[in-house]
Amino acid sequence: MTDQHPDAAYDEVRRLGKELSNWGRWGADDEIGTLNLVDAAAIQRGAACVRDGVGFTLALPLGEGGPHTNETPGRFNPHHYMTAIGMSVPASPFFHFSDDVVVLPLNAATQWDSLAHVHYEGLLYNGRPADEALSVAGAAYNGIDKQARHPFATRGVLVDVGRARGVDRLAPDVAIGPDEVDAVLEGTGTAVHPGDVLLVRTGHMQTFLVDGDRAALNGPAPGLGLAMAPWLRAHDLAAVAADNVMVEVTPSEDGATICPLHLVAIRDMGLLLGEFFALDALADACAAAGRWEFQFVAPPLPFTGGISSPLNPVALL
Amino acid sequence: MTDQHPDAAYDEVRRLGKELSNWGRWGADDEIGTLNLVDAAAIQRGAACVRDGVGFTLALPLGEGGPHTNETPGRFNPHHYMTAIGMSVPASPFFHFSDDVVVLPLNAATQWDSLAHVHYEGLLYNGRPADEALSVAGAAYNGIDKQARHPFATRGVLVDVGRARGVDRLAPDVAIGPDEVDAVLEGTGTAVHPGDVLLVRTGHMQTFLVDGDRAALNGPAPGLGLAMAPWLRAHDLAAVAADNVMVEVTPSEDGATICPLHLVAIRDMGLLLGEFFALDALADACAAAGRWEFQFVAPPLPFTGGISSPLNPVALL
Amino acid sequence: MTDQHPDAAYDEVRRLGKELSNWGRWGADDEIGTLNLVDAAAIQRGAACVRDGVGFTLALPLGEGGPHTNETPGRFNPHHYMTAIGMSVPASPFFHFSDDVVVLPLNAATQWDSLAHVHYEGLLYNGRPADEALSVAGAAYNGIDKQARHPFATRGVLVDVGRARGVDRLAPDVAIGPDEVDAVLEGTGTAVHPGDVLLVRTGHMQTFLVDGDRAALNGPAPGLGLAMAPWLRAHDLAAVAADNVMVEVTPSEDGATICPLHLVAIRDMGLLLGEFFALDALADACAAAGRWEFQFVAPPLPFTGGISSPLNPVALL
Amino acid sequence: MTDQHPDAAYDEVRRLGKELSNWGRWGADDEIGTLNLVDAAAIQRGAACVRDGVGFTLALPLGEGGPHTNETPGRFNPHHYMTAIGMSVPASPFFHFSDDVVVLPLNAATQWDSLAHVHYEGLLYNGRPADEALSVAGAAYNGIDKQARHPFATRGVLVDVGRARGVDRLAPDVAIGPDEVDAVLEGTGTAVHPGDVLLVRTGHMQTFLVDGDRAALNGPAPGLGLAMAPWLRAHDLAAVAADNVMVEVTPSEDGATICPLHLVAIRDMGLLLGEFFALDALADACAAAGRWEFQFVAPPLPFTGGISSPLNPVALL
Repeated sequence: MTDQHPDAAYDEVRRLGKELSNWGRWGADDEIGTLNLVDAAAIQRGAACVRDGVGFTLALPLGEGGPHTNETPGRFNPHHYMTAIGMSVPASPFFHFSDDVVVLPLNAATQWDSLAHVHYEGLLYNGRPADEALSVAGAAYNGIDKQARHPFATRGVLVDVGRARGVDRLAPDVAIGPDEVDAVLEGTGTAVHPGDVLLVRTGHMQTFLVDGDRAALNGPAPGLGLAMAPWLRAHDLAAVAADNVMVEVTPSEDGATICPLHLVAIRDMGLLLGEFFALDALADACAAAGRWEFQFVAPPLPFTGGISSPLNPVALL
Repeated sequence: MTDQHPDAAYDEVRRLGKELSNWGRWGADDEIGTLNLVDAAAIQRGAACVRDGVGFTLALPLGEGGPHTNETPGRFNPHHYMTAIGMSVPASPFFHFSDDVVVLPLNAATQWDSLAHVHYEGLLYNGRPADEALSVAGAAYNGIDKQARHPFATRGVLVDVGRARGVDRLAPDVAIGPDEVDAVLEGTGTAVHPGDVLLVRTGHMQTFLVDGDRAALNGPAPGLGLAMAPWLRAHDLAAVAADNVMVEVTPSEDGATICPLHLVAIRDMGLLLGEFFALDALADACAAAGRWEFQFVAPPLPFTGGISSPLNPVALL
Repeated sequence: MTDQHPDAAYDEVRRLGKELSNWGRWGADDEIGTLNLVDAAAIQRGAACVRDGVGFTLALPLGEGGPHTNETPGRFNPHHYMTAIGMSVPASPFFHFSDDVVVLPLNAATQWDSLAHVHYEGLLYNGRPADEALSVAGAAYNGIDKQARHPFATRGVLVDVGRARGVDRLAPDVAIGPDEVDAVLEGTGTAVHPGDVLLVRTGHMQTFLVDGDRAALNGPAPGLGLAMAPWLRAHDLAAVAADNVMVEVTPSEDGATICPLHLVAIRDMGLLLGEFFALDALADACAAAGRWEFQFVAPPLPFTGGISSPLNPVALL
Repeated sequence: MTDQHPDAAYDEVRRLGKELSNWGRWGADDEIGTLNLVDAAAIQRGAACVRDGVGFTLALPLGEGGPHTNETPGRFNPHHYMTAIGMSVPASPFFHFSDDVVVLPLNAATQWDSLAHVHYEGLLYNGRPADEALSVAGAAYNGIDKQARHPFATRGVLVDVGRARGVDRLAPDVAIGPDEVDAVLEGTGTAVHPGDVLLVRTGHMQTFLVDGDRAALNGPAPGLGLAMAPWLRAHDLAAVAADNVMVEVTPSEDGATICPLHLVAIRDMGLLLGEFFALDALADACAAAGRWEFQFVAPPLPFTGGISSPLNPVALL
């Protein structure tokens, strides 16, 4: 933190928010934002990317072995409890069943943030007043249940920044900008289209999957810089996900703002951000195939009023 | 219940289990069963079904408005709690965020049963001893986390029994058999292939979605008869899902056994069963398009040791 | 509900609240209200009531067999999950342990409402602004953790209205007033002193404990009328508890207000209300002994920021 | 851990268990063990200890600020969620209420272990077979709900070992034995009687309450040695509690057994153990008053089938 006045620190957020706003673009009642860009053409374009019939699931484990350190209230690996273990019923002892239940933070592990997750100046995406949208009952507007109703299947493009730089993983303070993303795309001969989803691989997930170091995973992390906001808007991406905790670089580049890209992306652009995506196996396959495009199917679950949702994204090459 | 000895009541289950068994078919260590049939060809065949670029999500709401009556311990609609509501941090009051958590039965709403869900005679699918596989820590073998690692994307086929009979919904005691399924498939000119998923529409979900009658939804329900087991095995389906609570007709046709199709399908065939699927909109679109095949992407979430998993299945026409 | 303007309906609540207010009586920072009346003399007076050495616990079961119908979100019988069942550790297989966890509404079963439970006109007990006191983090002021720090041991007095009327249980619409309470006390030769706790038995708990009818238990119920507020204040009771769901008669006598006694007692008087107390065995013992006074020890548990707390009250004759 | 055979390591546990057993002493069906010693005389003797009318509550906070490190699955500080925050109902906007829920390990913070908590050789207290008593549904026998039905009010005696030694807190490896307890009792002129509860203060709680060091609190800790088992049996104490995590010294004196005193006390003697008791303020008051006896009221809560129960114990001087 700095002694700079917090409001002034967010001048650029405000400016970008205004410039890149999608408010009203899909109607005054829209609650799904850039998912609107996943139209029939995008769905078809995604399916057309399936050639080898090879698939990958991109979710981290949902359990005690998950990515959280459990030190932050409200952010913990899900607790799993059995409610029946090989139970039978007196009248029919032949039949045995098991059942279970979880206590699950909706931001646990691999997840989409809904368009209700962050806001500023009292308004959420598309101008919804925070005090109308948010309550103890959850998100009355812009919640993940709204986004979960759209068929989230489109073309995905992997931008493997780590591999492009020839390193296992980026240093924690690396802010990835448009020039680097353009260079990686050009280097792999990959174009992006409106309605595509961008998956950005930093290699930072290896702090967890290779080192088993949850503190490092959840500490300072490489990610997108704020300058990516105009790029994402210009290319009309439907969503962006990464193999880190926040998609964007943390702490932020200016050292004074908290999650500035979250604010512009979610609140002004209505753009979904996907966190904790496991991209290593997919990246290896893309490199082997020399193709960095695939069908990407990743619907959140319809938690009523939910702020986020865990999911198991699928990429098909 | 009858006064028949329970064991004798399950003679047919035992016989079919032995006859239709897939134990060892994919190796002694296999924990995903018929998902093995979702191979490269199946993934490609699924993607090839996408023509119009129209998609459907098949999940019921996960919230107080879900399908459970909350009368059965361990089976209730998820509880949703907010852990942050537009919260800001002292150093940066411009930034606001919200977060949430759920208490979630893994069999809540639309879900896959894992291959650890039911068993008999002390053994689970592929011969895993129940006492090795099941404990308070969950399923050490055959759990939904194992099935969640396979890219569950293939061709789906809808068998709309309700529509074929010209009724809104089937009566609760209707057991759907192979002849009827064959007739519906023939009537719609649809073939099934190994690795496909069969979605069976009974119309029973309208007790909930139209009538709002959760007791009726969870009471006696039409569904597959036990005679469908050999049919599913003969056609090597990867999974079968339906718009009811158990896939199979409940109570069972013989009136003496509990979920006989569950036992044979899950324990002997290693076949995934999908419950509480919302199929009405998809069915309308299939009828309008005159096509009852589509790409079907439906990975469960990797809950470690999980017995079931909610999900948001996607069908793309 | 009536067509009367809601605010006008609460005129009497406002008037009584002003008249009976304890705001400032124990300092501007007080957060425990009438528990202040449990002083050294009250503690001694309570202990002096122990003669026969006979004790009673007054709590309902905390489990699936509890008093809730589970139909109201946020009000359900606790869910109980095992986290270890006779578990041993590899290095020391001789030792076995079990552990468990509950999902527990703090208003489940026998409980005290904290002084943060209800409010009106934006202020809680002792003038705490609701927006300062209440948030997603719980009660920053007046919460049950504050009341839990005071040693809640005093003299208890049972007013057995059911028995005095010669009936098993009062009809659901009976509002108990000061005259009847005075008559019962006089009839049993029992005086009340400042700092005492009043336990009021209506017999309504038998709808649950005898009939097993949770809907009746949680439906219309006999209880204190609003006219009891001045009586409780005049006698400076430390708390009042009853064998029903709300202490006060529900629906309210005027048919237009919700829990008017709650509002005056908790918000203005700072008086703790105890709900779902099981008083039948104690009442039988009092009648047999001809003594309706006893030591009463009933501390809530220190749930940080808690709105209520379940507990196991003890009465010693 | 050592390479000693685990079974041999527990020879002394087996020997003491046999020698000190209370199985059958209160009947074959007994499920409350030494709580039987809390009889009318004990209740009266406890009440007679109340002289000054000064009381103390002995519970640690139940919330994020509790004593757990959250690193052990199943042992974490309770999660607290609001289900209503100053909510009103449309028909009556004057009335506002708040409600909440917790996810609560029953061993969180200050608690009694039930007589179902530990066992060996397949049997629980009073010879209950573990496989009959323990299941995913909780403790069918010996659970905390059984002990919660007994009025747990008796005479308490504080043995302040830290103060007697003239130190703030004992070193983590101190095992307190009968000679030291006798010396402290003699030094304070305090006798113990059958049915009394012994509260043992080691000062170890200061690692948490003064240092805020949860890892130290839950790490190696001073406590009772195994030699205290015969002493507790000879004096027929109703329960013993301490200001540490396990009552007994951890790791155990022999370095090879896990919680040997737990096994003998809970499984063989049927003696309740109380953990995480906050005794510092009570100890100061006892020292100031020159009296180390008081009334002690500490009923667990009746969690159906519960293995433990948090509570708020009260000591009255």
